[in-house]
Amino acid sequence: MPQRGGGANASVPVHLPEGVAAPAGLVEAALAYEAALMADDLATLESAFAPGPDTLRGDEGGLLVGRDVISRFRGARGGAPKRAIEALHVRPIDDDHAWLAAVTAPAAGGRGLVSQLWERQHGAWRITAAHVSAPPRAIDPRVWRVVGDPLLPPTEAGPLDGHTVAVKDVFAVEGFALGAGVPAYLDEGAPHARSAASLRALQAAGASVRGIARTDQFAYSIAGRNAAYGTPPNPAVPGAISGGSSSGPASAVAMGHASIGLGTDTAGSIRIPASYQGLWGLRTTHGAVSTDGVLPLAPSFDTVGWLTRDRATLEATAVASLDEAAQVGLGDRFVTARALISSASPGVAAAFVAYLEAWDREVTAIDDDSLSDVALDGVQTAFRTMQAFEAWAAHGAWVAAHPGALGADVASRFEWASTITPAAAAAARAALERARCALDAALGDAVLVLPSAASVAPALDAAGDEIEAVRAATLRMTAVAGATGRPALSVPGLTVDGAPVGVCFVGPRGGDLALVRAADEWMPRAKRH
Amino acid sequence: MPQRGGGANASVPVHLPEGVAAPAGLVEAALAYEAALMADDLATLESAFAPGPDTLRGDEGGLLVGRDVISRFRGARGGAPKRAIEALHVRPIDDDHAWLAAVTAPAAGGRGLVSQLWERQHGAWRITAAHVSAPPRAIDPRVWRVVGDPLLPPTEAGPLDGHTVAVKDVFAVEGFALGAGVPAYLDEGAPHARSAASLRALQAAGASVRGIARTDQFAYSIAGRNAAYGTPPNPAVPGAISGGSSSGPASAVAMGHASIGLGTDTAGSIRIPASYQGLWGLRTTHGAVSTDGVLPLAPSFDTVGWLTRDRATLEATAVASLDEAAQVGLGDRFVTARALISSASPGVAAAFVAYLEAWDREVTAIDDDSLSDVALDGVQTAFRTMQAFEAWAAHGAWVAAHPGALGADVASRFEWASTITPAAAAAARAALERARCALDAALGDAVLVLPSAASVAPALDAAGDEIEAVRAATLRMTAVAGATGRPALSVPGLTVDGAPVGVCFVGPRGGDLALVRAADEWMPRAKRH
Repeated sequence: MPQRGGGANASVPVHLPEGVAAPAGLVEAALAYEAALMADDLATLESAFAPGPDTLRGDEGGLLVGRDVISRFRGARGGAPKRAIEALHVRPIDDDHAWLAAVTAPAAGGRGLVSQLWERQHGAWRITAAHVSAPPRAIDPRVWRVVGDPLLPPTEAGPLDGHTVAVKDVFAVEGFALGAGVPAYLDEGAPHARSAASLRALQAAGASVRGIARTDQFAYSIAGRNAAYGTPPNPAVPGAISGGSSSGPASAVAMGHASIGLGTDTAGSIRIPASYQGLWGLRTTHGAVSTDGVLPLAPSFDTVGWLTRDRATLEATAVASLDEAAQVGLGDRFVTARALISSASPGVAAAFVAYLEAWDREVTAIDDDSLSDVALDGVQTAFRTMQAFEAWAAHGAWVAAHPGALGADVASRFEWASTITPAAAAAARAALERARCALDAALGDAVLVLPSAASVAPALDAAGDEIEAVRAATLRMTAVAGATGRPALSVPGLTVDGAPVGVCFVGPRGGDLALVRAADEWMPRAKRH
Repeated sequence: MPQRGGGANASVPVHLPEGVAAPAGLVEAALAYEAALMADDLATLESAFAPGPDTLRGDEGGLLVGRDVISRFRGARGGAPKRAIEALHVRPIDDDHAWLAAVTAPAAGGRGLVSQLWERQHGAWRITAAHVSAPPRAIDPRVWRVVGDPLLPPTEAGPLDGHTVAVKDVFAVEGFALGAGVPAYLDEGAPHARSAASLRALQAAGASVRGIARTDQFAYSIAGRNAAYGTPPNPAVPGAISGGSSSGPASAVAMGHASIGLGTDTAGSIRIPASYQGLWGLRTTHGAVSTDGVLPLAPSFDTVGWLTRDRATLEATAVASLDEAAQVGLGDRFVTARALISSASPGVAAAFVAYLEAWDREVTAIDDDSLSDVALDGVQTAFRTMQAFEAWAAHGAWVAAHPGALGADVASRFEWASTITPAAAAAARAALERARCALDAALGDAVLVLPSAASVAPALDAAGDEIEAVRAATLRMTAVAGATGRPALSVPGLTVDGAPVGVCFVGPRGGDLALVRAADEWMPRAKRH
């Protein structure tokens, strides 16, 4: 017969090897920790973990290293789900060390498992390592709105047989209303009779639909923090944001929930999450893939794109979706620009420069006026003005009629958008047209190389102004492809502070497939497959 | 800088506390274990785990205790998913003990975490405890066909606000085809314009639809082993079957994926999974809840029912679904029958007898001919004959036109069903009508008390004939409610060998609500809330 826990947990059975006793005070310490956890008593919880940089805590979301990191996670979580301990299995190691497993019965159903390595330090039992398994969920609502096995089958067999698609919730999906990341918008929607053309192309090539994945609200953000549904997890950087606005498809692909993320990229919404999560991502040439059935954000810049874990899947997806007859080759020049690199954080800039130096291609730094700091600032300003004007044209009436329907970040962006006059928009359009001519003259059929984002993925609990600063720096870098309608491929080429950052290759319009086909040789040697 | 692993895993970074070295041979042993895991080298894997009953291995599915149990699990699994180790974090305890965590990068995406307690035994490093987190899945296809957040919203607010429904895939769900657990049947189906009446009643009371959950094929089994989609997990008994045919809804509720399982019970399909998974389950009075929009199995016996984790939810669900004006009260007699108890395994029978003895109600053992062994055998034979005849009438044409579409167990049941002549069915119907009269005379408005199932949940890897023997014994017990159209409530009252078994209360027709309302006092004292 198992022993029993003491005190408030008198009914918890404690299992030990035959003839072995638990070290004095251990079971009591474990039960006290559990009680503090249920009370979200952060001070007691912190002191239950051993201080220092070597303490570990892991779960399905990743491994946290160091007590400070663990405490920060716990503080941000807002309490653990309520649960009871069904049984403790204690494995004493010596007088001052023991391992134990607790089978938990969460109030919300299922069974969980917690294992802990305990050490007696200065007379007190402390956890030096912990591993937590919560019961698996039916669905991760941060990533998905609806998911199926499959949600929709392929319509024909083809080169994408066996592939599964996570569809950003700005695409029409047959039988479902469109949600755009906004609960009130979803509530008013009616099921679509026909899927978006770009989705039908994937189904016709053999892919099935895994589900409808989350998006930043109206796709008008690059962070992935959806006020209604939460932020999809970033498995490449535990505790960091996903990037957006194609946040759900990106996390779904990174987590292995789907092999193809179908998204859109207006100002970076494919490239940013690809960069933050170590994925391959292609923003296609403006107009090269039909946006039929896609909710607009800013039609002058909106493009369809894809996120994958590997180059071959991206190529097969692109081949299934693009008109190969309209595609072009790449020139033999690779160029970059100091003003683009200087937008990036010092760590990203250094990693990018090191990448260029190690690469076996010659990359010319363009000092053309079209890529000067002044020119890029102008492009960015004109781009965001015109984007906002078009976003308001697309959604202003709905937004105005639904006060409170949006999160603060997106709402304030729309509020600003509502102030753009037609004259200001016309001026921005003219400025962008001039910039496009100048950029086209400078770039020609060259491939422009730059970091995909200004930084690694910011922390989930980063302040709004930190997110905004990163956004501004990144959008300055992404605006070149946006303004010129050029395709942009992000490859997971850099690692900065242990986190992925993409290298972005912007090709000539129609050079989508050529970019994807050539890119394996552009990866750093150590990352090639 | 971290150290590096040796040999084939030379590129794996090994993290240790500052100034601490890994015990000799430990990292090599961990990497050798990983190599054996990737090769599914069962002999090496078994020997890497310490022998004896105290070795532990846990994951999201539960905790396995003892090396033999672990080896059996591993042998049944057919290999671990392919993965690479991204990093090892080693925490030496002493020369002969160490804990380590491995961050894994599965080939299918996401990140996983493995932690292990190692001990040097007779010179060789062995794992004495392991904890594994695989990356969370988009959907558990054993439990669900499609799932949403929500899949369908409530239609009105009401007493079921906040509740979520797992719908067995034999109910019409608006916008979706019906699958019946059979891929070919699903492929041919068209989306329903309207949900089943019993589902609409729950949505009108405030519940949302979480998703469409798995079922035994055409609901013609009580095991839960679906040849096409697998067996839903049973969180109450790791490594055991779910019970069926309402298998998906039962596991969904037990795992906390939904709060209400909407199922059907023809011969026990609510009561069996409730018993196996420690849930509350109600098979309603035949005809009391509309089967409009429900795929028939055997309409003379088909009933709608529900599975919940607690009594209060079951009551609210029943109130929302039943016509209270047609409900009746219970008499004051509680009865049981030796011939029913003797169908159960010795362990279940003993636990049930002990329950009756400890209960504060007087339960009379009926020795009426209607509940004799001979009579029960006759009821069971007639029941299964008529069930089969009706099942063939409902699905025979489809089954005959789709050879190979069903799993072997259900296919052989339909094959036998195809041999039942109308004359045999008529004889069975007459026999059942006589039995029903006799049983009604014996039972009146009494509550018949019996174990809900003949055994605890059998193991996932139980042989087909073991499953079949349990099925026969259980169906003999469930047939009384089936034959009389009486409601039957299963409450999670017994524990046998650590696994749940239900106590079943069969009331007079129309006594559904009275059963549910009274049942809290019928629970063993220790299990009351």
